[in-house]
Amino acid sequence: MSKGRFITVEGTEGVGKSTNMAYVKQWLERKGHEVIHTREPGGTPFAEEIRGLLLSKREERVNEQTELLLMFAARCQHVYNKIIPALDAGTWVLCDRFTDASYAYQGAGRNLGFDKLKQLEEWSLQGFKPDLTLMLDLPIEVGLERARQRGPADRFEEEEIDFFNKVREGYLNIAQAEPDRMKVINAEGSIEDVQQQIEQTLDLFYQQVVSA
Amino acid sequence: MSKGRFITVEGTEGVGKSTNMAYVKQWLERKGHEVIHTREPGGTPFAEEIRGLLLSKREERVNEQTELLLMFAARCQHVYNKIIPALDAGTWVLCDRFTDASYAYQGAGRNLGFDKLKQLEEWSLQGFKPDLTLMLDLPIEVGLERARQRGPADRFEEEEIDFFNKVREGYLNIAQAEPDRMKVINAEGSIEDVQQQIEQTLDLFYQQVVSA
Ligand SMILES: Nc1ncnc2c1ncn2[C@@H]1O[C@H](COP(=O)(O)OP(=O)(O)O)[C@@H](O)[C@H]1O
Ligand SMILES: Nc1ncnc2c1ncn2[C@@H]1O[C@H](COP(=O)(O)OP(=O)(O)O)[C@@H](O)[C@H]1O
Ligand SMILES: [Mg+2]
Ligand SMILES: [Mg+2]
Repeated sequence: MSKGRFITVEGTEGVGKSTNMAYVKQWLERKGHEVIHTREPGGTPFAEEIRGLLLSKREERVNEQTELLLMFAARCQHVYNKIIPALDAGTWVLCDRFTDASYAYQGAGRNLGFDKLKQLEEWSLQGFKPDLTLMLDLPIEVGLERARQRGPADRFEEEEIDFFNKVREGYLNIAQAEPDRMKVINAEGSIEDVQQQIEQTLDLFYQQVVSA
Repeated sequence: MSKGRFITVEGTEGVGKSTNMAYVKQWLERKGHEVIHTREPGGTPFAEEIRGLLLSKREERVNEQTELLLMFAARCQHVYNKIIPALDAGTWVLCDRFTDASYAYQGAGRNLGFDKLKQLEEWSLQGFKPDLTLMLDLPIEVGLERARQRGPADRFEEEEIDFFNKVREGYLNIAQAEPDRMKVINAEGSIEDVQQQIEQTLDLFYQQVVSA
């Protein structure tokens, strides 16, 4: 039995991550794989508790380093207790956001510094990375408009457009630095259009990486 | 106005940390200092929420790295939002446990490796350390017996004697490596006896460090 692969979906608010997870999952299942679908921050009951702390609103200002440590605490729990055991058992793992989101949101969005993040990633994950990342890209205004129609805003959604533009830049910089792993999908078109691009990307990944 | 000093009290369960905090506080107040008394993990409302996650019992096994990241998340919040602002304002800060407890409990007790801890301490605190640490030392059995009389056990108190012996060793190793900062107090005698040793230690610290 071969090991499973780890695929993540990234992008700013409202780009269509949740919408397209089911599509990716079905595509992989048609190839005959066991697939689990999970999300960050969260993914196990304890990691979801940590996620709860991160997303709830409070009076006290949360220190940037505190936020990052909590994010990676949830991530360690998720990776070591769920993702790696699944991959080892041959299951493919599909995850709604992962470490790239920390680089984009905390690193680029909040200017926390990529070096500081890299040290914490290395400390926590020892080089563990997705095999493939689908980065859904969309002008911020369009995504926020889509997200607004979906339901009430959480803490991140109240932040300014400027912040989200820096986050988007952050994602695009990663894609430029790691083009083999992170594929940019133009998410402006219809759902069908987006899914066609996703299918092409998965096809190529499959040919180059899995069947090779 | 001169900056405040940061004093921590350490030791295994039931050695008398809580019992002697008020004594240390009064001693410092008689010297004319503003003193606040705080504790780890916790110390701010948000850090207390993180403490709650760490101490509550659950089915899911908590990964060692997750535990350590949560510990340092609470610590960052505590240090940057409460301790450092207080010291800057000239207030002395007295804390029930701090980073030494991570070295003793997670490092020595759970064998997590001092290097790994050192990296995380450096990442989180950038060299911030107590000015003085009072390490109350007692054979494990005596401390656990005292703690048992105090009330019901939490998650750590259910651990084995072996574990606590390693924790005690861990503390004693730090004291050996940093004798100027960490002072070992023999906590076996009566409360009066322990407080006499504490007073001598504070006197000396005051002469050498504060008045100098
Ligand atoms: N290509 C698209 N065109 C128009 N609306 C879309 C498209 N993709 C998703 N949506 C809608 O936009 C909203 C946000 O999508 P969602 O998948 O929840 O985004 P995300 O998970 O990335 O925040 C949803 O209401 C969804 O139905
Ligand atoms: N020197 C001492 N001799 C006997 N009992 C003590 C002494 N110091 C503390 N105790 C008692 O031992 C118990 C544990 O003390 P506590 O201060 O709560 O320990 P810690 O905070 O280190 O876990 C308390 O019931 C306390 O009254
Ligand atoms: Mg979503
Ligand atoms: Mg106590």
